Amino acid sequence: MNLRKQNIGAYLFILIVLFSCSDKEAGLKYDSMGEIMVRIAELEIEPEFLEEYLNILKEESEASVRLEPGVICIYPMYQRENPTEIRLLEIYANKEAYESHLQTPHFKHYKTTTLPMVKTLRLVDMKAIDPESMPMLFAKMSP
Amino acid sequence: MNLRKQNIGAYLFILIVLFSCSDKEAGLKYDSMGEIMVRIAELEIEPEFLEEYLNILKEESEASVRLEPGVICIYPMYQRENPTEIRLLEIYANKEAYESHLQTPHFKHYKTTTLPMVKTLRLVDMKAIDPESMPMLFAKMSP
Repeated sequence: MNLRKQNIGAYLFILIVLFSCSDKEAGLKYDSMGEIMVRIAELEIEPEFLEEYLNILKEESEASVRLEPGVICIYPMYQRENPTEIRLLEIYANKEAYESHLQTPHFKHYKTTTLPMVKTLRLVDMKAIDPESMPMLFAKMSP
Repeated sequence: MNLRKQNIGAYLFILIVLFSCSDKEAGLKYDSMGEIMVRIAELEIEPEFLEEYLNILKEESEASVRLEPGVICIYPMYQRENPTEIRLLEIYANKEAYESHLQTPHFKHYKTTTLPMVKTLRLVDMKAIDPESMPMLFAKMSP
């Protein structure tokens, strides 16, 4: 019974990871090849606004991945020990996709409404290590 | 032409994200329901060992995702401005999967060989924000 429950949970989680962090159409709208943008955003939120902030963030990240082909992944997390410490793994098809993201109504809404809630913000540009070794893992995904 | 090149690049990247961060079998081996473990590991590497460290890390993370059903994702990155600053997004099916990971030959090899290369290590337990809103993104992935 536990095993069945666990399987359902595991499948659900995997669906979520797949659907939140992937997009076959990524970049189709963008003319220049560009380079994938990977970033970790580090935010500290004013404790009294945390719940409100999380609600607005959820809406914004969901809308971005759903509406923007160039937003490949926004994976928001908070630190268990310090829930006001937010981390977002953000992956954009290229710089243009990111620039376009900044102009969307949902991002602008997020930015203006959360401005007084954000104590600190640090945007850290990252580079993925060794993405090319991964296709061999395909077999794991097959039914 | 650019568009075609870009599409291939985008597809390749998406395949990589899918295959490195997903596993339909995740958790099948584990008896207890448990909770998904999400973590960001923050490491600073001694500059003279950086290249060697990255090679060992690549091998270890690739082997972990390939060989261990409970290792859902290890996504290694470094900071563009400070390449000795490494960040790993790690997702395990549950605590047992993580404990089992610590006992694998590939992890033990990584741990012992890189010990002198690692200046600082911080393991930060995270919690994903709002994973349940994501299944609606399925449509985006369909051909």
